[in-house]
Amino acid sequence: MSLFDYEQKRVIAMTKPIREEAMAKLFSQEDQHVIKTTLCVADLGCASGPNTLTVVSELIITSEKIRHERSTAELEYQVYLNDLPGNDFGGVFISLPRLFQEVNEQAGLKSDQCFVAGVPGSFYGRLFPRQSLHFVHSSYSLYWLSQVPEGVEANKRNIYLTSTSPTCVVKAYKDQFQKDTTVFLKSRSKELVKGGQMVLTYWGRATEDPTSTESTFFWDMFSAVLNQLISEEIIEEEKVEAFNLPIYHPSSTEVAEEVGKEGSFVINTVNVSQVNVDGEENGMSTIAKRGEPPSRLMRSVVESVFASHFGTAVIDEIFERYSRVIEDFMSRQRILLTNVTISVTKK
Amino acid sequence: MSLFDYEQKRVIAMTKPIREEAMAKLFSQEDQHVIKTTLCVADLGCASGPNTLTVVSELIITSEKIRHERSTAELEYQVYLNDLPGNDFGGVFISLPRLFQEVNEQAGLKSDQCFVAGVPGSFYGRLFPRQSLHFVHSSYSLYWLSQVPEGVEANKRNIYLTSTSPTCVVKAYKDQFQKDTTVFLKSRSKELVKGGQMVLTYWGRATEDPTSTESTFFWDMFSAVLNQLISEEIIEEEKVEAFNLPIYHPSSTEVAEEVGKEGSFVINTVNVSQVNVDGEENGMSTIAKRGEPPSRLMRSVVESVFASHFGTAVIDEIFERYSRVIEDFMSRQRILLTNVTISVTKK
Repeated sequence: MSLFDYEQKRVIAMTKPIREEAMAKLFSQEDQHVIKTTLCVADLGCASGPNTLTVVSELIITSEKIRHERSTAELEYQVYLNDLPGNDFGGVFISLPRLFQEVNEQAGLKSDQCFVAGVPGSFYGRLFPRQSLHFVHSSYSLYWLSQVPEGVEANKRNIYLTSTSPTCVVKAYKDQFQKDTTVFLKSRSKELVKGGQMVLTYWGRATEDPTSTESTFFWDMFSAVLNQLISEEIIEEEKVEAFNLPIYHPSSTEVAEEVGKEGSFVINTVNVSQVNVDGEENGMSTIAKRGEPPSRLMRSVVESVFASHFGTAVIDEIFERYSRVIEDFMSRQRILLTNVTISVTKK
Repeated sequence: MSLFDYEQKRVIAMTKPIREEAMAKLFSQEDQHVIKTTLCVADLGCASGPNTLTVVSELIITSEKIRHERSTAELEYQVYLNDLPGNDFGGVFISLPRLFQEVNEQAGLKSDQCFVAGVPGSFYGRLFPRQSLHFVHSSYSLYWLSQVPEGVEANKRNIYLTSTSPTCVVKAYKDQFQKDTTVFLKSRSKELVKGGQMVLTYWGRATEDPTSTESTFFWDMFSAVLNQLISEEIIEEEKVEAFNLPIYHPSSTEVAEEVGKEGSFVINTVNVSQVNVDGEENGMSTIAKRGEPPSRLMRSVVESVFASHFGTAVIDEIFERYSRVIEDFMSRQRILLTNVTISVTKK
């Protein structure tokens, strides 16, 4: 699922040096045979928006640049695009000629050097055969957990963590994050070759407190809307109390800790950066309704989750109100997205 | 694009021994390292019908049987499902749990031993990296050419070859088949490992004459319908004259000849078999309108091609009339589908 196409584009640009360094590391492995004739790259949680193929084409261009500098033999590229089975793979497949054109032009590839396959399935589990990947990338997908944590009934009218969430709820979310991350790392550990590289960007958090507004803001605003709807008797209190989102925004420390505990990877870099979700930077300064773009984008991210719980009838109402709440907030304060990027090498 | 789900199921069953033999051959290669830890299988032109996953699961079950007999090490399976980008990959991906259940139950695989990827693109060109495949299979897809042959203007009101087609049209179709087959073989030759196996089943023909009714029947019946519609001034003569289908039903000799000429493969088996398209065998004996099932199925195969040429308005009319024409024919005569299966080893 994609988030904030424009902001994500900026995140992709900001984290590019980390991926370039990782690619250089892949080529510098002591074992010269790490990459044989084909470099296999996987993008996990590829979604189907305008940014789907950006990182993939950038990675191939980077690889070709390094290969030329080192005058190593010609390579072929196998790209695996992964997302859940319900993802619009058809849309991605139709847009592939753009990828081929881009990498052929910019990296000087021939027409038969780059191959793309779609891989449906959850990255919280195996997706690829043993030692079949050289480079794994994932951006803004890993904040989705595999399920709503168990034991979060006490979270009441909140739909994610917030400053009023009881300690047991915070622990349940954190436990689920740790459990999922371990499964993720164990799976990738089997799939990557020794010396293989993995760069993951989380929609994360800059503080150590999982309930700090900075990371929970977008969800708190939904809680505010849902509570309005309860008070107006448009939806039932029980419905909201039974609703919690399967997401988690980790800090860089939490991510690094899980990688350390799992033990299959060496950490090369952990990076925290922030981008401003701002109408002005977004070229939206002249648009009165600055809350609309974030609302529209959040809708693309979570509409299905909301619809399956609250029903489709109330969905327009939720996102219209959300737009107004966000707009009000943006007129007073900046909204930041925190990116936690970790770059690791398979031991 | 799938054809005759029921008949294809029978074709799949009939050609199973050929695939079993090919799989045994793969395991008997002198080079013991042909298959390392992962056996990579590609199904080309997988479509999205009920038979899409049948052959794939059968191949894995066969492989596991042979592996157990030989007591060789545990394998993982990478399955590539290929079709054109417009294929309903979403539908295929959603049905994957059925494949996993089948192979896990019948072949005793663990949950993390089989991986599936969708590969969009034309098999008349490269689809996979060099030496990345061990087994290639294709059934009832290779009768589609890459394009309508050039120089078939003289084919007039025919839409495929028929006994009234001029020699130059027959030659143009045959040339296109040969050109496409060479590209297909050259591509697969690069993608298969040495000793890799390929089993192809064509919707073919039992005689050497490309215009014999036996192979052109289904298309002749469309010509008959289109000519009715011309005489009733429902469609224009020019429209029909400008329409030719990008298909070819080859004989076993033609297929074998192309494999011989291209030179990358050793032929193991060439097999010709026929199945009866018959209401009775199909469990349709009590249904008055025996022409409907073939019409419905042909519609699923060629509707888009007809619609883009003749427009969507006339489509229902075409297939309703086709149903009646086929029904009339079936009451008098058997309709046979000829299968040409070739099994080859990569040199």
